[in-house]
Amino acid sequence: MTVAGSQYRTFIDDLARSESGRLLHQELGRRWPETDDQLAVISRYALLPAGKLLRPIMTLHAAEAVGGSPADVLAAALGMEYLHGAAELHDDIIDDVAVRRGRPAAHITYGIPSAILTGDHLICRAFAAIVDEPGATSPGHVVAAVAALAAAGSDLCRGQILEAQMVGDLEAGVRWYPEMIRLKTGALFRVVCLIGALLGGAEQDAASALARYGENIGLAFQVRDDLLDYVATPEQTGKPAANDLGNGRPTLPFLLAYEAAADSERSRLLAVLRRHGSGDGDAGWVNDLLKKTGAVASARQQMAVHAERARAELAVLAPSPSVDVLAGIAHWTTSEAS
Amino acid sequence: MTVAGSQYRTFIDDLARSESGRLLHQELGRRWPETDDQLAVISRYALLPAGKLLRPIMTLHAAEAVGGSPADVLAAALGMEYLHGAAELHDDIIDDVAVRRGRPAAHITYGIPSAILTGDHLICRAFAAIVDEPGATSPGHVVAAVAALAAAGSDLCRGQILEAQMVGDLEAGVRWYPEMIRLKTGALFRVVCLIGALLGGAEQDAASALARYGENIGLAFQVRDDLLDYVATPEQTGKPAANDLGNGRPTLPFLLAYEAAADSERSRLLAVLRRHGSGDGDAGWVNDLLKKTGAVASARQQMAVHAERARAELAVLAPSPSVDVLAGIAHWTTSEAS
Repeated sequence: MTVAGSQYRTFIDDLARSESGRLLHQELGRRWPETDDQLAVISRYALLPAGKLLRPIMTLHAAEAVGGSPADVLAAALGMEYLHGAAELHDDIIDDVAVRRGRPAAHITYGIPSAILTGDHLICRAFAAIVDEPGATSPGHVVAAVAALAAAGSDLCRGQILEAQMVGDLEAGVRWYPEMIRLKTGALFRVVCLIGALLGGAEQDAASALARYGENIGLAFQVRDDLLDYVATPEQTGKPAANDLGNGRPTLPFLLAYEAAADSERSRLLAVLRRHGSGDGDAGWVNDLLKKTGAVASARQQMAVHAERARAELAVLAPSPSVDVLAGIAHWTTSEAS
Repeated sequence: MTVAGSQYRTFIDDLARSESGRLLHQELGRRWPETDDQLAVISRYALLPAGKLLRPIMTLHAAEAVGGSPADVLAAALGMEYLHGAAELHDDIIDDVAVRRGRPAAHITYGIPSAILTGDHLICRAFAAIVDEPGATSPGHVVAAVAALAAAGSDLCRGQILEAQMVGDLEAGVRWYPEMIRLKTGALFRVVCLIGALLGGAEQDAASALARYGENIGLAFQVRDDLLDYVATPEQTGKPAANDLGNGRPTLPFLLAYEAAADSERSRLLAVLRRHGSGDGDAGWVNDLLKKTGAVASARQQMAVHAERARAELAVLAPSPSVDVLAGIAHWTTSEAS
């Protein structure tokens, strides 16, 4: 845990309990009531009980940071959770993930066909969320928000494909990792903030700054996630230990260790990755190497750089409680607590 | 083949070779060039070589029928093909279909994960197609078009889920068939025409009439498809004979036979459906029963009713070559040639 970040460890949990967080939780429940409709049943399963609603909270605060009203952006903010939920539904099928948030993944409970279709439905609901309650926002800004969401959705898919191509391939990993996380995670957090800015009525400069803020938060968030997979306990992350290694996925700490390692260690890293860390002592050896090569420290530094870039983008905005929240989220990304 | 429809048998093929059809084919190829990008490679595989582009052609003509310019609606018209392609990609996984248009289905060639992601990408590209080149259309009309697409996308998913629930269940089939095809096929053709109307700048009345026209075309089209599965050869349909029965799917002719059949025949129909027509002589017996009970004739009549309703909706539009094309498509749906 970095010194600067330590006081922000509970920031996201506090945000979820803030007025904005409670409003979003309440609206999400209201918009997805219990029902007999199978598509809505599975959607509810994917969306509720809600997590921390970090993405919708960021959309709300991005809108408020440019002078927009929360009411005008509430539906679209929840739409960001629908896109996130759709991605989880499809990713869990793709990655053969059986457990999500401590419960069977949706495709385990409802079957793969229904989970595919519910993901498609939630993608459509994300677009609907932007256009169905446009509030005071000009149609031109709404159209720009739709275009941004469509582009981000495609980026997410491209990032996922790239990630799959990196499985078990360290040279591809080193080469494509930055682009992969820009597409897979950067694009989602980017659009979460950009849509808030656009529907909040932002001028071009402020919208672009908030988009870059979001992208850098996404990059920091992804590196944080990569790190937690190695340095945190399953209780902290809610995922199995060394989950990425178990999926044969070379993430940043692993790739940095590979780059810094001696040739013999490189060969072994590749072998360990290809057998998904299934050998006796694989996990311990990788963890030791990550420390020895300075890979963990180096990944932490990259995370801090992204967080700092994010914070710096906020300088163009007039000071406000929402800007403070966005800055706090940047601090939180480097605090390494779940 | 009905007498009224016989002269329209080649109408859709002729349309594909018309100026609009050639323009759409050319633009589709231009927008999806050969590339190394895996997502675009699989998208190309799903979209090209193009079929008859019936849906984009309908979007173009709906726009022209209300005085819109083809240039303003070209991108969105192709977007209808992207949505259709996305549905095919995901449906082929869901229905375990191995062959599409005489080639291995995309998930066979590229794997299920890539096919899921490419479907998601094409959904996003459909939305992007509406907003990225709005032309002369007012932003308000563009926003309405996005809302219509989002609603239709969700309807498609709901229709697919409903269809899956009907597999092997004839009581559910009889009860849910009309709603299922309204959602699964009606909604797509509805939005294909509604988006053309909106982006063509239609007034509310004309847009609503074209939406109802499209929905009825979709219903006629679905019944036609159901019928062809029983009465046409695999060469005509490009699918295996009795494909629906082979999937345990009770379609309209089958359901009408069930309703008209004696109790003993009903039991056998259910048994045949549950074994997916795999018993010796099942297919022949079902075909005989479809004729004996008048189910084929009755399905043809329902098809004709939908087609006639579609044609009737065109009455509010000023006469034009595009209105003639839309009327011709209604005639074609009852011609029962592929």
